[in-house]
Amino acid sequence: MVLASESCGCMSTAQQSSQCITNFIRNPHILAMEEDYLYHLGLGTKTHDLPAMFGDVKFVIVGGTPKRMESLAKYFMHEMKAKLPIGTQLSDITGAAERYSMYKVGPIICVNHGMGNPSISILLHELIKLMYHAKCKNPVFIRLGTCGGLGVPGGTVVISDGVLNDKLNAEHEFKILGNIVARPTKLDVNLAQELKSLANLSDDYQTVVGKTYCADDFYEGQGRLDGAFCDYKEADKMKWLNMLRQKGVVNIEMESSMFAALTNQAGVRAAIICAAILNRLDGDQISESKETLTEWQERPAKLLARYICRQLNVRDEGCK
Amino acid sequence: MVLASESCGCMSTAQQSSQCITNFIRNPHILAMEEDYLYHLGLGTKTHDLPAMFGDVKFVIVGGTPKRMESLAKYFMHEMKAKLPIGTQLSDITGAAERYSMYKVGPIICVNHGMGNPSISILLHELIKLMYHAKCKNPVFIRLGTCGGLGVPGGTVVISDGVLNDKLNAEHEFKILGNIVARPTKLDVNLAQELKSLANLSDDYQTVVGKTYCADDFYEGQGRLDGAFCDYKEADKMKWLNMLRQKGVVNIEMESSMFAALTNQAGVRAAIICAAILNRLDGDQISESKETLTEWQERPAKLLARYICRQLNVRDEGCK
Repeated sequence: MVLASESCGCMSTAQQSSQCITNFIRNPHILAMEEDYLYHLGLGTKTHDLPAMFGDVKFVIVGGTPKRMESLAKYFMHEMKAKLPIGTQLSDITGAAERYSMYKVGPIICVNHGMGNPSISILLHELIKLMYHAKCKNPVFIRLGTCGGLGVPGGTVVISDGVLNDKLNAEHEFKILGNIVARPTKLDVNLAQELKSLANLSDDYQTVVGKTYCADDFYEGQGRLDGAFCDYKEADKMKWLNMLRQKGVVNIEMESSMFAALTNQAGVRAAIICAAILNRLDGDQISESKETLTEWQERPAKLLARYICRQLNVRDEGCK
Repeated sequence: MVLASESCGCMSTAQQSSQCITNFIRNPHILAMEEDYLYHLGLGTKTHDLPAMFGDVKFVIVGGTPKRMESLAKYFMHEMKAKLPIGTQLSDITGAAERYSMYKVGPIICVNHGMGNPSISILLHELIKLMYHAKCKNPVFIRLGTCGGLGVPGGTVVISDGVLNDKLNAEHEFKILGNIVARPTKLDVNLAQELKSLANLSDDYQTVVGKTYCADDFYEGQGRLDGAFCDYKEADKMKWLNMLRQKGVVNIEMESSMFAALTNQAGVRAAIICAAILNRLDGDQISESKETLTEWQERPAKLLARYICRQLNVRDEGCK
């Protein structure tokens, strides 16, 4: 594979609808703007040739930390047997803006979203606008992350087929000009099943599909007992976690409701694949070694690499 | 000034109550834990001697990006005429955890909190526990940030004396085990006024005190017209912004309600000082040059350095 840009070209092998993301920007003001500067990405329509830079993007991968996204981009390069020109290396495209880190490997961009719904919200608004300005066609958005498992052991790969908020509704409540606007947290169920089908029987861990509960906090918001404050008892926590389990929740994290609501609003196909770093029914503290956690976090990336390689028709010798 | 640790010592010059933060941890479970590993800081009670490392901390400074926090720590070193041992340099204490970056300069720690309430929430839970485990006495928590100004020009320094949420209440609504728990977003008004008194007449910009509106998003949540989605008109936005102005709001940002609610819950003195990077009554896009924005962001740091130098009795030749 050669890492060259092909402006706004659909992959001939991608089994996607022909509808372009440009149909899905739902903001008449953007059309009237002379310049759109994506502040947190450090990219603008006047300062950068966005179609030339990003027009070929087909896979928008987001995840927590800058380092993980850099490693992921290098991993995709390796899996796709992609080559950079001699004497070059991957570099952070948005580095100067100091908010997010973005790496590009052919039709894939990997960007870190920080922690929590508000942080990923800013990124998604600007990525969706970036896809629009770059005239990308049919990009797929995928979040790779970590989560607390619910009834599944640490190391399990969890693919979300829906997201529940604190009211146990499948929607995210946006606060806009003093009003609450609820938008559905709908993910692409076919994409979730396609990803699940790529789990190998030889994998020595489970890959499951289920509902994700999205919290606004790591401690009290997820019923942990080990935050700075805790006014409830272990029995209250267990009752709540078991109630979530009854509702089909298999994992808990902090970005899924915003991710699902905004990608659905934009009309782009989207999926969430997380590695469980503990089973919350067993405890709260994350006590595995750095090495184990790193290996667990590589599992969603392996699944995603299989999907991308299939989409791009990269031969088996490239992707395992 | 010498950068040595004095375990758990109160500064003799600090005009603070004698109550220790150890009184304010409100979680009986922590007392019963054999080990507390602060996962996102990469610090633990078994793996680190937290009292020796952090017992002398008097000022906990939090702000958005890792780079800004590193620059801030270096700036404080310079202002306090602090010296490191020959052949050493500041290094990121929490680097291996990959979530936040923390720098320590004598009794000051500077930590980045990322963007949004959930991101700062995780940090604050772990910082409050860190102060507790390290047996710190009377630390002051201060957030330095950027914001949109409301009726004040870009470059204005805004000190918050209260925080309003989307319902225009001075509280943050926590979602805990399926319930809404509203906690007051109370800041230390005396500290805000003390900080205001340190604004110099020779400063060629305004320093104002007022209310802060806390949003969960940069675009629709702040009434911007330039997000990926916008279902309202400019007149709706202006009506809402002017209504906020009528309520005494002078700036809008994304971390203040969590910061004020959790520090108040912990019983620690806390303040928020932000640089306005635009006047939202004039527009939405941030169009100033990088150099101008950098200079504006240094202004809250200057004010804070004056406060810290006064608290530590550093002579005038050290702090300007």
